[in-house]
Amino acid sequence: MIAVFSDAATVRHALIFEGALARAQVAERLITPEVALAIAAACEALDIDSGELAEEAALAGTLAIPLVKRLRADLPEDAARAVHLGATSQDLADTVLIIQAKEATALLMGDVQRVCAALFALADRHGCKPAVGRTLMQDALPIGFGLRLAQAAAGIADAAERLGAEVAAHSVIELGGAAGTRAGLNGKGAQVAARMAAELGLGESPPWHARRVGIAAIAAALGILVGALGKFARDIALLAQNGIDEAREPQVAGRGGSSAMAHKRNPTGCQVALSAAIRAPGLVAAVLAGLPQEEERGLGGWQAEGPALTELFLLAAGSAAALAAVAEGLEINEAAIDANLKRSGLGNDVGESVAIVAALRDRYAKDKP
Amino acid sequence: MIAVFSDAATVRHALIFEGALARAQVAERLITPEVALAIAAACEALDIDSGELAEEAALAGTLAIPLVKRLRADLPEDAARAVHLGATSQDLADTVLIIQAKEATALLMGDVQRVCAALFALADRHGCKPAVGRTLMQDALPIGFGLRLAQAAAGIADAAERLGAEVAAHSVIELGGAAGTRAGLNGKGAQVAARMAAELGLGESPPWHARRVGIAAIAAALGILVGALGKFARDIALLAQNGIDEAREPQVAGRGGSSAMAHKRNPTGCQVALSAAIRAPGLVAAVLAGLPQEEERGLGGWQAEGPALTELFLLAAGSAAALAAVAEGLEINEAAIDANLKRSGLGNDVGESVAIVAALRDRYAKDKP
Amino acid sequence: MIAVFSDAATVRHALIFEGALARAQVAERLITPEVALAIAAACEALDIDSGELAEEAALAGTLAIPLVKRLRADLPEDAARAVHLGATSQDLADTVLIIQAKEATALLMGDVQRVCAALFALADRHGCKPAVGRTLMQDALPIGFGLRLAQAAAGIADAAERLGAEVAAHSVIELGGAAGTRAGLNGKGAQVAARMAAELGLGESPPWHARRVGIAAIAAALGILVGALGKFARDIALLAQNGIDEAREPQVAGRGGSSAMAHKRNPTGCQVALSAAIRAPGLVAAVLAGLPQEEERGLGGWQAEGPALTELFLLAAGSAAALAAVAEGLEINEAAIDANLKRSGLGNDVGESVAIVAALRDRYAKDKP
Amino acid sequence: MIAVFSDAATVRHALIFEGALARAQVAERLITPEVALAIAAACEALDIDSGELAEEAALAGTLAIPLVKRLRADLPEDAARAVHLGATSQDLADTVLIIQAKEATALLMGDVQRVCAALFALADRHGCKPAVGRTLMQDALPIGFGLRLAQAAAGIADAAERLGAEVAAHSVIELGGAAGTRAGLNGKGAQVAARMAAELGLGESPPWHARRVGIAAIAAALGILVGALGKFARDIALLAQNGIDEAREPQVAGRGGSSAMAHKRNPTGCQVALSAAIRAPGLVAAVLAGLPQEEERGLGGWQAEGPALTELFLLAAGSAAALAAVAEGLEINEAAIDANLKRSGLGNDVGESVAIVAALRDRYAKDKP
Repeated sequence: MIAVFSDAATVRHALIFEGALARAQVAERLITPEVALAIAAACEALDIDSGELAEEAALAGTLAIPLVKRLRADLPEDAARAVHLGATSQDLADTVLIIQAKEATALLMGDVQRVCAALFALADRHGCKPAVGRTLMQDALPIGFGLRLAQAAAGIADAAERLGAEVAAHSVIELGGAAGTRAGLNGKGAQVAARMAAELGLGESPPWHARRVGIAAIAAALGILVGALGKFARDIALLAQNGIDEAREPQVAGRGGSSAMAHKRNPTGCQVALSAAIRAPGLVAAVLAGLPQEEERGLGGWQAEGPALTELFLLAAGSAAALAAVAEGLEINEAAIDANLKRSGLGNDVGESVAIVAALRDRYAKDKP
Repeated sequence: MIAVFSDAATVRHALIFEGALARAQVAERLITPEVALAIAAACEALDIDSGELAEEAALAGTLAIPLVKRLRADLPEDAARAVHLGATSQDLADTVLIIQAKEATALLMGDVQRVCAALFALADRHGCKPAVGRTLMQDALPIGFGLRLAQAAAGIADAAERLGAEVAAHSVIELGGAAGTRAGLNGKGAQVAARMAAELGLGESPPWHARRVGIAAIAAALGILVGALGKFARDIALLAQNGIDEAREPQVAGRGGSSAMAHKRNPTGCQVALSAAIRAPGLVAAVLAGLPQEEERGLGGWQAEGPALTELFLLAAGSAAALAAVAEGLEINEAAIDANLKRSGLGNDVGESVAIVAALRDRYAKDKP
Repeated sequence: MIAVFSDAATVRHALIFEGALARAQVAERLITPEVALAIAAACEALDIDSGELAEEAALAGTLAIPLVKRLRADLPEDAARAVHLGATSQDLADTVLIIQAKEATALLMGDVQRVCAALFALADRHGCKPAVGRTLMQDALPIGFGLRLAQAAAGIADAAERLGAEVAAHSVIELGGAAGTRAGLNGKGAQVAARMAAELGLGESPPWHARRVGIAAIAAALGILVGALGKFARDIALLAQNGIDEAREPQVAGRGGSSAMAHKRNPTGCQVALSAAIRAPGLVAAVLAGLPQEEERGLGGWQAEGPALTELFLLAAGSAAALAAVAEGLEINEAAIDANLKRSGLGNDVGESVAIVAALRDRYAKDKP
Repeated sequence: MIAVFSDAATVRHALIFEGALARAQVAERLITPEVALAIAAACEALDIDSGELAEEAALAGTLAIPLVKRLRADLPEDAARAVHLGATSQDLADTVLIIQAKEATALLMGDVQRVCAALFALADRHGCKPAVGRTLMQDALPIGFGLRLAQAAAGIADAAERLGAEVAAHSVIELGGAAGTRAGLNGKGAQVAARMAAELGLGESPPWHARRVGIAAIAAALGILVGALGKFARDIALLAQNGIDEAREPQVAGRGGSSAMAHKRNPTGCQVALSAAIRAPGLVAAVLAGLPQEEERGLGGWQAEGPALTELFLLAAGSAAALAAVAEGLEINEAAIDANLKRSGLGNDVGESVAIVAALRDRYAKDKP
């Protein structure tokens, strides 16, 4: 996930954007084939120190300025003029961000799916096992042990569906030009944008420079997913307490130890997920706070989005990966479950736990048993 | 909107819930028709001081306890025992909250639709009017004046669609009983829940006591909507500045004056919307922060949701109502638009503004011209 | 606490502000004694329906406008002109908010002090009692049972000191007039402000209309206090779990029951505090997000502060009151403490627990034993 | 600032911590001088690939585990056993974080002081220059142009004082051992901690593993500072608008250009500061949300702090550096100020602007003129 958002990946996508722009423009007869070929070649040939470029971009306030400058430096004058023609910095930045969001989502979904599959499988196996159900952190009535896992999985799956849908809906090209009017493209802006979108695997769209609802929706969906993963982590952390002992994380080499207490088995996977769940809401809030962006391009609100969205993807990825290992290797202690239930004196009527597990699986599981 | 979430409305919905529960149970032969009738009559007859009840509920930590106690007080023993049978406090609280969210959304959508309709109409009328486009708060290139309004409207409409879809998807019954297993309903829990859902106009669902993704999604959708409304408010506040003067809020009696400066015309509608846009992200963050709820019912996270969600609806409603008046009465000053553009020396090429307005309207406007 | 921020209290303070302004102006010979007397009399005599006024204020965007209008209605022309002279709406609003913050803090501190006193007393009594210490929710090494309570108390006391200091530092008059220059006071603005400050029990200050650092600091201090209270609640909720059983909330009539499970003893005080701890951070974020306020008076950022600050005081008060009862009546189960420690096999070396308790008490407790 | 929080710096401080621990222990006769020398030598000699170590630390959930393992690998058995003796991972992590916070604050304060000094100097020079004062983004009454700058500077200085005070108050050693009792130090824990504190330039303190009020206070102070800097940025962004033109950022080579519009002079310094002001509140909220940490060491809440605090320092540093350049090179356009005031028809009575500037400078400026 770090690679998806690395400086190197950003530059690579940026060059692909500029190349796609040139190809679309030649198709619409805005530039000559020779110029387009020269630009495409320059985009492929350009050898960039992405760290150095990142520093210049930070100073300039945008990646496009130093990047385009370098591309132009290697080109004859007519091709140099045609680089980035009709585009603005934000077209490049937004399109790259969307491509990265799409890649990141695909990557993330793999681990999320692992969590859900493992949990629904455990839920099936332990759906009718009577265990203490707990409300407000107090023993309440018996539940099927698997019901709690199915509920956690359903929440994660619901959140993942939302993320997938928002990313799909908003994986669209940004091409508006300096003020979002597609001026400078000789009336062919919509066509150029459509061709670029097709080449880049994105949807078509009118420009959305200061209309950030899509980005906000992706950020919120990530925050909800991180929270849903956190619910599973919270449950395991509670079940793993000494004196409860109903379930615990698997032992992972190099993980969960203590520098001072060799006997400990720390719930480090849960820790990663719970820490993410504490950090994510504020990042979502930052993106939402930036929504009222000024006129044709925001000052501050827009620039706050990229780092927040990147961090949200990193947190979600870290949480999902950690919890995939936890879910797949979860150690369930049936003796402790029995003992706790016996101590509670609550009997063993698990009500409709099994049916509810089945209903949740039917609605939310991808792979039906 | 205040009425939707008032103590009185909450109690009214709570009594409807208890009545629907009794009717569903008699249909499933869990209680006798006589008992069900007695409960239904008690629900209708109960005359409650909702303020007093709210205080008792605050002490008890839940509305259900004092409410059920009162209902039982007026009933013969067998009927008293049957009140709230198989249900838990959270079943009542969540179902009522969802009913209120549904009502609140319908109410809110009216004003949101007014904003969008007014803005798309203005966008049509002024789509090709050359005006200064501004990026990073600096003059950039010309735009069609209506393009900015259409972009604002499209963002609001996109956000409203999301809210509508989330509320529709999560307007479901909550009925899980004490530990979310539907114990105590003699294996008829799913049927009872389905009957109640039908009576209450909600969807069916497995219990979702500690699976709060739906609530979080509604909260996030509200936060995004408030932010999208804030974008329009920001633009009008900027356009209304003395020295820019391109548009301003209509005069509303009693609004926008100054206690010290009679000459002022304050953008009070924008103020309401911008204030809401500053407050909403933190409320969304609170709901997200509460997602990792403990086991079968959360301690703290759950209880934080109701006030945050209510406040989000109030903010959204206040913002939408204020901006509906602004959009419908927006005063556009063509002379100032011309003068600013002339001063800028940017020419008057508005690019594909008109086509983009049309594309946004096609995609987002409800009432096509 | 609700009374402190009620509409009625707000109007009462507002009238006191206007009266103090008139008295300060007559002392500086800006108005005649007759006019000042007439204004003071009007302020005292005015009988206002505060709900009705609140509605007009909401429409006007400020309380000052309808309030001043009513005062003027009852006065002869020369006195009417002198009402609110040299002041602006925000002078009134900020000064009233500060007076309320000061009152609210005093009220809140009483309950906070109860929590700390009770906890330090318990810490003394149980400082050397060996108990399981837990890190990352796993048994770690023994601690003195009282050490955990002393740490919680120290955090709360540290947070309370900060709140007290910030409120004291920022309990200052706001008097800047329409644009924050104290124009219209004939060069006597500083003197008028100083006289008003003295009468109202506030400190002197240059105007601070768009300089909101003080308000933000009070909000942050409240958020930190709510979080520190939440730490104690979290600990008690964990200790009260069945299977741990080391401590629990006292039984309070009408509190902590369950509508479905008569056997339960829910940690309702902790619930109040933990719910507050989830809601407070987002309210602090809202106030911080509003800091970059525009020029001489902010549009949106300023208006967002009042509701957020009020809500923070209400959350802090609710949390402190609930936890004062918990701390004062905390039921500690020594047998369970012994049994858990024995089961852990960790021995009973509590290290320097007693000395650390003493050090914390020396540094943070108000009443030394 | 990036260097202060780099992996390399973290490792360097960690080794200094372990060395100081050994030296303090020999002074308290807990280990032999030979062992202490061996450990100190190992700490100095250790050549670590900090990136590799960071990865192992991420897996282990703490830096201490892989670091201590490496130190021990190079030492004879008795010295190996004595490494990290009586300390726990969090002792190391918290102490290093505090050292970094102290260094970061010193660095940050340099740029903050530059901003304040430049603004107060400008405020003096332009204190009596009549200019349009604006409230709610509308022309209000005249102000001295310098008054607005002095207000911004005062807010920044107030925020910086708070940060300095919080960092000073909480720059304390963390040494509590595995469960915060200082067990394993033979009753000499307080003395060892005091010696380490003295060597590391920190204050003494009882352990504070799960008492995070100090960290929260530093985070909140940073958030307030970023917001106060944002207020100045907002004002300049508004003044720099075409059609207002009263002030603008200086030209900085490589900064503020546009990839599409050569004529533009973007307020890139303000952009950095405003973007930071949108991101900071959510980071503060994350730290506050983590305050209710579990028992002797939190699971999730603690681990969320480090990244959030680091990011807050980076945002504050970026904002202060950008605005120092803006303040020192601010271009003020007196002709535009005059023209706007004339157009407003507000006259030129600046009230007590000059006196208020003086009062603000007296209270907040470090270097009095």
